[in-house]
Amino acid sequence: MKQSKWIWKPGDFELYHSMLLHNRRTKFGLYYSPMWRIDAPARNVLFYKIVNLEKPETITAYSNAKDASILVNGARYPVGTTVKLEPGRNFIKLSAYKDGGFPAFYCVGDSFASDETWKLGSWGAKDLPVGTNDMYTALWDNPEIFKFSYERVRPVSVESINGGKLYDFGKESFGKLIFENVVPTCAKFTVICGESREEALDPENAVVHVAAEAENGAFTSTSVAFRYVFVPDFGDYDFAIDFEYLPLPDKGEFRSDDALINQIWEVAAYTLHLNAREGFFDGIKRDRWVWGGDAYQSYFVNYYLMNDNDIVRRTQRILRGADPMTMHINTISDYTFYWISAMWEYYFHTGDIAFIRSMYATMLSTMDFVEGRLDADGLYEKRRGDWVFVDWSKFFDQDAGPICAEQMLLCHAYACMAKCAELMEDAESVAKYNALANDLNEKINARFWDEEKCAFVDAYTTGNRNVTRHANIFALLYDLTSDERKEKIITHVIKNKEIPAITTPYFEFFELDAMCQIGEYQYMTDMLHSYWGGMLAHGATTFWEEYFPEKSRIENYAMYGQPYDKSLCHAWGASPIYLLGKYALGVRPTSPAYATYEVRPNLMCFGELEGKVPTPCGTVSVKMTKTDVTVLADVDGGTLVLGDKTYPIEKNQTLTVHI
Amino acid sequence: MKQSKWIWKPGDFELYHSMLLHNRRTKFGLYYSPMWRIDAPARNVLFYKIVNLEKPETITAYSNAKDASILVNGARYPVGTTVKLEPGRNFIKLSAYKDGGFPAFYCVGDSFASDETWKLGSWGAKDLPVGTNDMYTALWDNPEIFKFSYERVRPVSVESINGGKLYDFGKESFGKLIFENVVPTCAKFTVICGESREEALDPENAVVHVAAEAENGAFTSTSVAFRYVFVPDFGDYDFAIDFEYLPLPDKGEFRSDDALINQIWEVAAYTLHLNAREGFFDGIKRDRWVWGGDAYQSYFVNYYLMNDNDIVRRTQRILRGADPMTMHINTISDYTFYWISAMWEYYFHTGDIAFIRSMYATMLSTMDFVEGRLDADGLYEKRRGDWVFVDWSKFFDQDAGPICAEQMLLCHAYACMAKCAELMEDAESVAKYNALANDLNEKINARFWDEEKCAFVDAYTTGNRNVTRHANIFALLYDLTSDERKEKIITHVIKNKEIPAITTPYFEFFELDAMCQIGEYQYMTDMLHSYWGGMLAHGATTFWEEYFPEKSRIENYAMYGQPYDKSLCHAWGASPIYLLGKYALGVRPTSPAYATYEVRPNLMCFGELEGKVPTPCGTVSVKMTKTDVTVLADVDGGTLVLGDKTYPIEKNQTLTVHI
Repeated sequence: MKQSKWIWKPGDFELYHSMLLHNRRTKFGLYYSPMWRIDAPARNVLFYKIVNLEKPETITAYSNAKDASILVNGARYPVGTTVKLEPGRNFIKLSAYKDGGFPAFYCVGDSFASDETWKLGSWGAKDLPVGTNDMYTALWDNPEIFKFSYERVRPVSVESINGGKLYDFGKESFGKLIFENVVPTCAKFTVICGESREEALDPENAVVHVAAEAENGAFTSTSVAFRYVFVPDFGDYDFAIDFEYLPLPDKGEFRSDDALINQIWEVAAYTLHLNAREGFFDGIKRDRWVWGGDAYQSYFVNYYLMNDNDIVRRTQRILRGADPMTMHINTISDYTFYWISAMWEYYFHTGDIAFIRSMYATMLSTMDFVEGRLDADGLYEKRRGDWVFVDWSKFFDQDAGPICAEQMLLCHAYACMAKCAELMEDAESVAKYNALANDLNEKINARFWDEEKCAFVDAYTTGNRNVTRHANIFALLYDLTSDERKEKIITHVIKNKEIPAITTPYFEFFELDAMCQIGEYQYMTDMLHSYWGGMLAHGATTFWEEYFPEKSRIENYAMYGQPYDKSLCHAWGASPIYLLGKYALGVRPTSPAYATYEVRPNLMCFGELEGKVPTPCGTVSVKMTKTDVTVLADVDGGTLVLGDKTYPIEKNQTLTVHI
Repeated sequence: MKQSKWIWKPGDFELYHSMLLHNRRTKFGLYYSPMWRIDAPARNVLFYKIVNLEKPETITAYSNAKDASILVNGARYPVGTTVKLEPGRNFIKLSAYKDGGFPAFYCVGDSFASDETWKLGSWGAKDLPVGTNDMYTALWDNPEIFKFSYERVRPVSVESINGGKLYDFGKESFGKLIFENVVPTCAKFTVICGESREEALDPENAVVHVAAEAENGAFTSTSVAFRYVFVPDFGDYDFAIDFEYLPLPDKGEFRSDDALINQIWEVAAYTLHLNAREGFFDGIKRDRWVWGGDAYQSYFVNYYLMNDNDIVRRTQRILRGADPMTMHINTISDYTFYWISAMWEYYFHTGDIAFIRSMYATMLSTMDFVEGRLDADGLYEKRRGDWVFVDWSKFFDQDAGPICAEQMLLCHAYACMAKCAELMEDAESVAKYNALANDLNEKINARFWDEEKCAFVDAYTTGNRNVTRHANIFALLYDLTSDERKEKIITHVIKNKEIPAITTPYFEFFELDAMCQIGEYQYMTDMLHSYWGGMLAHGATTFWEEYFPEKSRIENYAMYGQPYDKSLCHAWGASPIYLLGKYALGVRPTSPAYATYEVRPNLMCFGELEGKVPTPCGTVSVKMTKTDVTVLADVDGGTLVLGDKTYPIEKNQTLTVHI
């Protein structure tokens, strides 16, 4: 018997869980609506498969929908009954309707089962393979419930304070609050959660309030974020949490003789894990939404940590929602451009062509939306309702005609789109998007380059000639200008202390990536020590949404005008994993899906380092000391690069090179 | 206090009830999926209103969604609480999420209330006025339940037969079967409904089976169609029905000295009323779906009977569903073209510009869909998945390049689109669609006209030169050719008995309309006597989906290869109301919204006739005998036309003209 899976309209699983998660935010216990359109899964579905049988067999279809039937060669049967199939061609159709949740089927046959080989009847759009997810393979699985794992955890300490108890779980956590043996058995009480001790003890300002109502002496909350939990004294109870997580193993590793960097790597990993949920979240406390920029960075960390493909696929689907597209992703133009680039970069790291195929029509309609909002000259300029993000820091010259950084992200998206089109053998689109990329690149270099300042300026229409790091970093990262100009950028922008520094972990990701690309490893490791190390010095157990080294610990908790609105567990803080894997261990693909890759280890500030980087088909282990480099990989295609020397890496054979 | 209404995303009410009604069909008790995409209402909504107050007042918002809140000037409150508003500008936002059903709000203020003056926040699309419906104005109303009226009705006779009881309700009916005082109190039994006595007594072949399961001695079914109901003997019970209907008053009337025609008018009216539900249904027994062609004809009858605007609006929204459009309406290309034309014709008869405004973007995207499927030459040719309907009778030359009738419907749709664009002051689209109409008209006349046959042929690509009535009728009806060619069509097609006759009530609608346009009243009244009268002679209490005068009564019940699959209550049989109102009473608008209209009464075969025709602002009463015509109207703009003489009709003044 083949393995059956629950099947649904492709994307419905993600749309449904996106709908749930984006509607879960509350503020002071009140419903807090998302600020973009949330699309819903289909309520009617039709799936089909043609099977050619050599001998008679049976099929039984199950559905989570009350209104469902199976048609076999035109004859209709109820779900749950076993239908006999004759040898030869059998045309099997499943149709269902479900309002609330989303309709799905599960079929058990002898020689075939419900899986990706079934097709969606799309009523006029292109019929696509149905959606499945490897988490939902048993008949008793329910794809309307996201399959998290849970672990019962008790607080590490408790303190009597302010007329209640303050529980400390020792580190940032996420899950359901579990109250048992509650007396009075129907007690009502309000629990205050805090990522910091101060927040949990400040009911006026704490972001997460849980209105608990015990029934028969028990209460279980929805899942919330906390390190500290304050429970007012009201009677008796036992308290624990069900820690909620996805059991994604760490395939990447990093260890060095620098204990602080090792700790940063571990905390970064924990930070990403806590945010690795239905999709990659921005942070786990406040909105718990899926944001394109945060997700884009999480993908790169993921490729060096869990290397889980499904969470990238889910996140991309959640971000994009359904057609028609009427707003940029999360309303932010940059995030739409990242979304397109992320598709190619996903393929480049994973080789998962099936996902590109299933999303290609959506990529094209995304580009149609983008193109429909360009100016007459093909440049992107902010439209009503668009949020031009680039970075939180808003010192650059904006809202004044096209912004350089945005054109660069769009240009990179065009190039990525052309590469995906090539993969899909869509020659017309290859030509189109390459031409758009070239044309935009010429315009960027012609209009935004300031020869006197030796830099790209933010805007060319204002005459301000304002230079910030952002666009110049993108020019390096995405290879958008000549080598000569790159040299000028490095000298006159990147290494120029006159140009305002980056102040957010978000843009540090891009800056440090660019710094490493130009060999400024010291800058990167110094920043790890001071910036990430600075958060740890404040007792951080996960990395923060924003960090100002010059501010006190408690001052740092404030954001958006509120004392505790900053997220203390924000995915974009996890970039050290990516940076250390790519530039210290030095492992990176040189062609899609790691068909070829290089290992360019770099000792940086370390006395020694070792670690592992996952690839689609195996793992690359690297160890480096001041005298030797050792590489062991269970995949083909690798080359060790040390200075100007190269050494082929033989699969499963330890390669040691004396430096 | 202003009248509050339930508000929702425009179209959601119709999408929701469309979803319910299209998923209600069963065959032998099994779920029977619709064959086109069924779109769902939004699960997230955002509504807003800016109110400028002179003095303080309060607002209270209610929602049917658990996850809902109201924001007043940025401060968030739960629904159900009374919020104080200060004088001056107040920005009020309502947001909600609901999975299953659809989210709606109801607000009570002092000087303002929830109504069409609120806007939908559309997240990037165009913000539109919210949706409302005048049926839902009380806080305790539930827009998720369609507001039908019910009347308890008992059978007119009962007969013991075949081990059960056969109940006769005297005429076709629709509603819930009500069993009370059932013994045994939890009895299970299968009820067979029949539009005919034969069907109710044939459980093998009857279309409507009701599996009854009494609970505590009572059972109420979902609403079904029947005249006869067979209940097997199983114990004791009281049986009645709750007749389900919309209380739409008949504003149109017709009476003559011809009793048969009077009866036809009454039965036609009853037929339309039974099909006038969430939208205009095709028929009430079998699929109970909303089909564009059936609906298109129902609209015209409606304008001469109930003249209810809301049911036309609801039906148009149900038919169209949501964007993106990936298939023709009901998969049928003609139906998409009718849908566009119906928008203009609705405005022409009602003057309801607000509806055109609310649907205009959707009309444009519909035309984009249509244009995307034309051939390189701008002609419509059947694509994969398209159903080219024209008429049930399939003797014409089809599936061989572009069909003439389809181009004509498309050409009329272009012209109607241009007129709506003019109404919307969209000059670019006026020019575009007029040009498309002219261009297509030229191609139709150049390619499909056969000078030797003096007729439009079905197809020009086959060389068959096959002539059917359909395209030639459209050429007359929609004014698509020269007067000279029209004369030739009348002589060589319409009055030519060699050209196969129309055989469906559906196309009789168009034929009789064209016949009356050219003054062939005798043909029309003969057809009423023989064709519609023929159904009555068979005991029909509503008009049928199809009728073959040469077949027996029972033979006529068969369709689609099944003995009782024919619908005996089909909306398209109601056309006599339209024909008699427009051509016998002779009342028709000559400019939009009856701003001007003419009364051209015609005695036809009658000794005398009288009746009323509703207009948007009143009623036109007409009486005609062999010697006199009397007109009384409570609206301005009328002209009585008798031969070549015209008489202005003064509002509220009886005008009598001696012939």
